[in-house]
Amino acid sequence: MPAVLPSWRDDAARSAILNFVALTTDPSSAHFVAQEDRIAVFGHDGTLWCEQPTTVQTLFARESLEKLAESAPSLRDREPFRTLLERDPTAAHRLGKRAIFEAMALIDAGLTLPEFEARVRAWLEVTPNPALVRLCANLVYQPQLELLQYLRASGFSTWIISAGGVDFIRALSQRLYGIPPEQVVGSSNRIEQRFDAFGGSVLCKLPTVRLFNDAEAKVETIADHIGRRPILAFGSSDSDLPMLRYAMGGPTPGLALLLHHDDAFREAAYDRENHLSPLIEGLDHARELGVTVVSMARDWKNVFA
Amino acid sequence: MPAVLPSWRDDAARSAILNFVALTTDPSSAHFVAQEDRIAVFGHDGTLWCEQPTTVQTLFARESLEKLAESAPSLRDREPFRTLLERDPTAAHRLGKRAIFEAMALIDAGLTLPEFEARVRAWLEVTPNPALVRLCANLVYQPQLELLQYLRASGFSTWIISAGGVDFIRALSQRLYGIPPEQVVGSSNRIEQRFDAFGGSVLCKLPTVRLFNDAEAKVETIADHIGRRPILAFGSSDSDLPMLRYAMGGPTPGLALLLHHDDAFREAAYDRENHLSPLIEGLDHARELGVTVVSMARDWKNVFA
Repeated sequence: MPAVLPSWRDDAARSAILNFVALTTDPSSAHFVAQEDRIAVFGHDGTLWCEQPTTVQTLFARESLEKLAESAPSLRDREPFRTLLERDPTAAHRLGKRAIFEAMALIDAGLTLPEFEARVRAWLEVTPNPALVRLCANLVYQPQLELLQYLRASGFSTWIISAGGVDFIRALSQRLYGIPPEQVVGSSNRIEQRFDAFGGSVLCKLPTVRLFNDAEAKVETIADHIGRRPILAFGSSDSDLPMLRYAMGGPTPGLALLLHHDDAFREAAYDRENHLSPLIEGLDHARELGVTVVSMARDWKNVFA
Repeated sequence: MPAVLPSWRDDAARSAILNFVALTTDPSSAHFVAQEDRIAVFGHDGTLWCEQPTTVQTLFARESLEKLAESAPSLRDREPFRTLLERDPTAAHRLGKRAIFEAMALIDAGLTLPEFEARVRAWLEVTPNPALVRLCANLVYQPQLELLQYLRASGFSTWIISAGGVDFIRALSQRLYGIPPEQVVGSSNRIEQRFDAFGGSVLCKLPTVRLFNDAEAKVETIADHIGRRPILAFGSSDSDLPMLRYAMGGPTPGLALLLHHDDAFREAAYDRENHLSPLIEGLDHARELGVTVVSMARDWKNVFA
């Protein structure tokens, strides 16, 4: 059994990763990269953990919304809340990622950041995923955990660059992935600092979106938060392509990977249609873009831990 | 001679710092703070280096603007460029920080990030400060360098949270302060990724402001970039107060410091008036806010290296 990446089958995707890490970390290599420039960025939903039948954050928002609707029933008749409450992933996906995040901003408004974090953490540990027989906290892909650990052991810093809400991901990133909050970049609400009479303060989530971090915006937030070009990027949809092309576009080699969900038996098979984040261009043009497509069915021995 | 903070006089400000670090790093202390939560945030202009007679970035923008005006003389008649070219700091300051940053966004538009960084680095090493007999690269405050080093040696991470342009500060932060790019948070332009025919890409600065990082916005960007509450904050103007109050507002003790420029002999004496970032509320209410005011004249043995 191989020492690293044991859940990855010994084939082209695994070799591409091992070769790239050897190329960039061997001081005698022409493409050696200094440790501070070994930056690896990952999408979150569909890349590091399962996003089926819909994203975990959407499930969480729906539960929060249902509680809100108990005391404010008129929410049930207002869009986009009406659609979100339908429990039909296809309908929710038709709203689009941005509209869903705008709804979340409204649903979460007024919570302090510590309250929100505590709610997410408690919820994750007790809530089952509706499609798979596992808790939401156990939807992480085992091969990706091994990859994150292998990269960090090779001197890489590992970042999450997601369209999901940054506060939601940070509530779980250290525990699930070993990634600290400052290496999580996501969409965010406006925030307001509120004071008590004794100088104590707390940050509250406001009902407006501050930043929606999808597609080209991911390149801007990488520039803003990291300030260096990543040399490895791993995504799962066309909205990750700008970030993947940025990782590959530098003067030294970069590695870009796309996870293809083609495993209806162990997880789900989806790409082009009926899905919040389609993968079309990335599949059709993988070779000319220079992207390595990772097939869940073919390349992963295990999917979940 | 004391082992740490040798350029700080042995008085109240220095004691406040030493006591706070002892309190938070001694595992037997009731206020011990885990290493990952030891976060210290600093303003930049006027906190870590001299901002007189105007900020270094404004000097840089003026030189870039003068070059632009050679081929586009009509810029000389358009505001805010006309005022910026006047070389009168008082007039420039009347424009306000945001207007100056908006002008910088226009002046820098079209440059790639690597081009901009190279320009700033070359310029810093050859450009004298008009008020002091030193190069702009040598405007760093020696006591603050010692403080940054002392904090890092005590397990703190040190961050710059500035209204200045993030790309400008990153061009110098590692060399001048030992602070890596991902720990610099500032104002930013919109950014666009541009591709060549071979898949190479570069990020270009667009002429619009993406984020202006002043006052309350500093608390939002701390939340967005760090995701934890700092326990130490050091600023130099009222626009740093929201960040200082955030550092002090947590459930465990925080330390907030304000540098008072009261040293006309070694640097400059200014606070309330005729200045881009006034310090009024911070001085008048320091005691009730719980802020430690650092007097450059009284508390620092040396100002520059």
